[in-house]
Amino acid sequence: MPSFGLRHRRAWASLFSQLLRPSGFVCIREVHFHSQGTRDLSPQQMVIREKILDMVVGCFKRHGAKRLDTPAFELKEMLTEKYGEDSGLIYDLKDQGGELLSLRYDLTVPFARYLAMNKVKRMKRYHVGKVWRRESPTIVQGRYREFCQCDFDIAGQFDPMIPDAECLKIMCEILSGLQLGDFLIKVNDRRILDGMLAVCGVPESKFHAICSSIDKLDKISWNDVRHEMVAKKGLAPEVADRIGDYVQCHGGVSLIEEMFQDSRLSQNKQALEGLGDLKLLFEYLTLFGIAEKISFDLSLARGLDYYTGVIYEAVLLQTPAQAEESLNVGSVAAGGRYDGLVGMFDPKGHKVPCVGLSIGVERIFAILEQRIKTSGQKIRTTETQVFVATPQNNFLQERLKLISELWDAGIKAELLYKNNPKLLTQLHYCEHMGIPLVVIIGEQELKEGVIKLRSVVSREEVAIKRENLVAEIQKRLSES
Amino acid sequence: MPSFGLRHRRAWASLFSQLLRPSGFVCIREVHFHSQGTRDLSPQQMVIREKILDMVVGCFKRHGAKRLDTPAFELKEMLTEKYGEDSGLIYDLKDQGGELLSLRYDLTVPFARYLAMNKVKRMKRYHVGKVWRRESPTIVQGRYREFCQCDFDIAGQFDPMIPDAECLKIMCEILSGLQLGDFLIKVNDRRILDGMLAVCGVPESKFHAICSSIDKLDKISWNDVRHEMVAKKGLAPEVADRIGDYVQCHGGVSLIEEMFQDSRLSQNKQALEGLGDLKLLFEYLTLFGIAEKISFDLSLARGLDYYTGVIYEAVLLQTPAQAEESLNVGSVAAGGRYDGLVGMFDPKGHKVPCVGLSIGVERIFAILEQRIKTSGQKIRTTETQVFVATPQNNFLQERLKLISELWDAGIKAELLYKNNPKLLTQLHYCEHMGIPLVVIIGEQELKEGVIKLRSVVSREEVAIKRENLVAEIQKRLSES
Repeated sequence: MPSFGLRHRRAWASLFSQLLRPSGFVCIREVHFHSQGTRDLSPQQMVIREKILDMVVGCFKRHGAKRLDTPAFELKEMLTEKYGEDSGLIYDLKDQGGELLSLRYDLTVPFARYLAMNKVKRMKRYHVGKVWRRESPTIVQGRYREFCQCDFDIAGQFDPMIPDAECLKIMCEILSGLQLGDFLIKVNDRRILDGMLAVCGVPESKFHAICSSIDKLDKISWNDVRHEMVAKKGLAPEVADRIGDYVQCHGGVSLIEEMFQDSRLSQNKQALEGLGDLKLLFEYLTLFGIAEKISFDLSLARGLDYYTGVIYEAVLLQTPAQAEESLNVGSVAAGGRYDGLVGMFDPKGHKVPCVGLSIGVERIFAILEQRIKTSGQKIRTTETQVFVATPQNNFLQERLKLISELWDAGIKAELLYKNNPKLLTQLHYCEHMGIPLVVIIGEQELKEGVIKLRSVVSREEVAIKRENLVAEIQKRLSES
Repeated sequence: MPSFGLRHRRAWASLFSQLLRPSGFVCIREVHFHSQGTRDLSPQQMVIREKILDMVVGCFKRHGAKRLDTPAFELKEMLTEKYGEDSGLIYDLKDQGGELLSLRYDLTVPFARYLAMNKVKRMKRYHVGKVWRRESPTIVQGRYREFCQCDFDIAGQFDPMIPDAECLKIMCEILSGLQLGDFLIKVNDRRILDGMLAVCGVPESKFHAICSSIDKLDKISWNDVRHEMVAKKGLAPEVADRIGDYVQCHGGVSLIEEMFQDSRLSQNKQALEGLGDLKLLFEYLTLFGIAEKISFDLSLARGLDYYTGVIYEAVLLQTPAQAEESLNVGSVAAGGRYDGLVGMFDPKGHKVPCVGLSIGVERIFAILEQRIKTSGQKIRTTETQVFVATPQNNFLQERLKLISELWDAGIKAELLYKNNPKLLTQLHYCEHMGIPLVVIIGEQELKEGVIKLRSVVSREEVAIKRENLVAEIQKRLSES
């Protein structure tokens, strides 16, 4: 075949000059072989990631969810007017003479589209998949432009707050199960938030914009948020101050009672509905034994447009000592109720109430990866159980016959792709890769109809009749 | 935690025995809620798909592969000049003021880019992920614009044909394991193909174009391919006829020997190299016990530019009776050797020889899904083990406390999200969903400190002390 080497090297040079141009992004350690804000996941990283995903999916299955998958891209119109201020972060595909398409921004909108499209009225589903957002990549915080989401949602008309409580229970089970340390789930309700804005004197046309500002309270101070509200979003200073009084409140059931008595809030129908639901929610959370993990927090807003009721966000609690040396990971799980989204896709506007949660596995992954690095723990990236070795030359044929038998018996086995490897090289490979067993075949063994079975750790060797080898290996593996 | 291994294997076996039945027609509803050529995967489809993927990944792990992941999109330049005539099928992202990006077209090019970028000289990796191609969607053939690929590749300089033989062994293990019926793997070598074109009198500048034509031989007749070569690609008719003599040859080791003696081919150095390697390959395939599944086929060309040595493609063999009523699925697995691709990404052109395979899981999925539909077999889409029920009103609190205990013990449990559901509704739900066990709590049980445990199939009920409930459920589940 002709070589493309030279032609390609030229393309490479032009690429390299492009990459050297200054960009506004955070500098990534790796060479710019691929798009900024994206990354490959190495085998070590995949092992950690798969353990996290197994745990998360195991929890979703424990709660009776079915698995769904949707395409990576949607018709562009399906994603418009769903994400508020964040819509600018949607990746569009080039118009190559077909439909206008966008990469999905989350897994919630595709789920709602699926329900409407298939006229599904009830469904408990989970979805593990990548989503894409054109954000400035701040990789130290574990934020990428391509990242994995794990979503669990319950769609359907049910008695109030039972599915909502289950979503919070799931978040607690996952965060406890992953042993990430102490955590807290902030809870609020969009109706309480809207009611609060109304009684503070915010005009309804500014609700979304002000919500977006409040949503920044976990990243910037109240003073900066207040400044944004007044200077950029045109709110009267006294209105902002009234909001300030509320958004600094957080607590448990007693705060709900307090807000029921609040002179302004108690005049707002929406807020009262939200407070009533939160009260019921806390009742169920107590039965689930997780009430002490939940904090009613009037500053929680959640950026996305589609929420209509209860909203929540889990944050990890760190001791000051930990905080200094560890990642600032922000929220690790979040979600809420979105009763209007499915109706937006239905030609007749039929609604399907939904509530759900999303696990921020990338951030969790960043924490666990760092922990493993710090501990110096070695991770096996293969599961190979047996290595097929020989001490002699010209034994490739016997090795191939033998390994084929092992594979056919379902045993995970490897050999070196070399006609005449040295025995020491073969044994070193096993030690390096953490392979527990070696089977050794040589002239003597062949003559006697046996195979030597060696434990890599103890270095003990026993001769085993060839016909008993598979059974003996399976016995050893089941014991270990 | 109880083990479900055995039961799972049995369920899978029964699923497969159903699948072996001849298949009927496929009927897919046209939808316009999302992009043409893409689709959602329903929970039923996801169950089948995950079983296939588990089986495929299990085989990759058995052969000692590590898992890798790469981003959905690459820098556009990374994908150019890799795919020959198919390059027009690459999806580009819109230029939104950053880099020029394209969705990945396969998993091979990203793997080569990864190796070059990280200066990795040896790696055995697998990758399961979606790829995107702007093809005319021919949905009846199981072709979509978004589809999943399962790739296994061995990178590194090794003794000849050992990794290549392992790739073919893996294809056999997977296709046998999935019980898809009889299959055949066609094998050829790019050097034999190039040598053949050279000795037939094809000018080197036309090698790629003529290869692409030959590649169509599994879809259109030799006459049509000949016409394309002569009329569209400007080949002399006598040259085309010489090609025709070769590409109609297929067979085993004896055909390799025959080609070694061929008056024209034996004059070509490249072809002789390829024939020599194929001979060695067949020796190893015989040791692996799979030689009878492999056919040396001079018509096999494979469309992609990057192959440099042995190439292969697995097809399912159908009896004429089956072929009439079933899907035309084409090849279900393919791959080959690409020794130059990594060097195209390396600034200094350093080469890393590679060989690999890709499993066409979408087509396999289409076959198995159709067989299940035909068999009328019902697939469970959840794994719920226990349902928490009550015969009485006002028992939501007790149900929530009880189900929380089950979840915390790792038991997969559900309840109805209703304050006062009817007992019959609850039992019907279990039957409908295939949930094996029900725990029932009512006033009487609460008073006596017991829970009723009911088998959904036998309808037998026993009272169990509340404190023994979890242990009893775990015992029952481990027995079933």
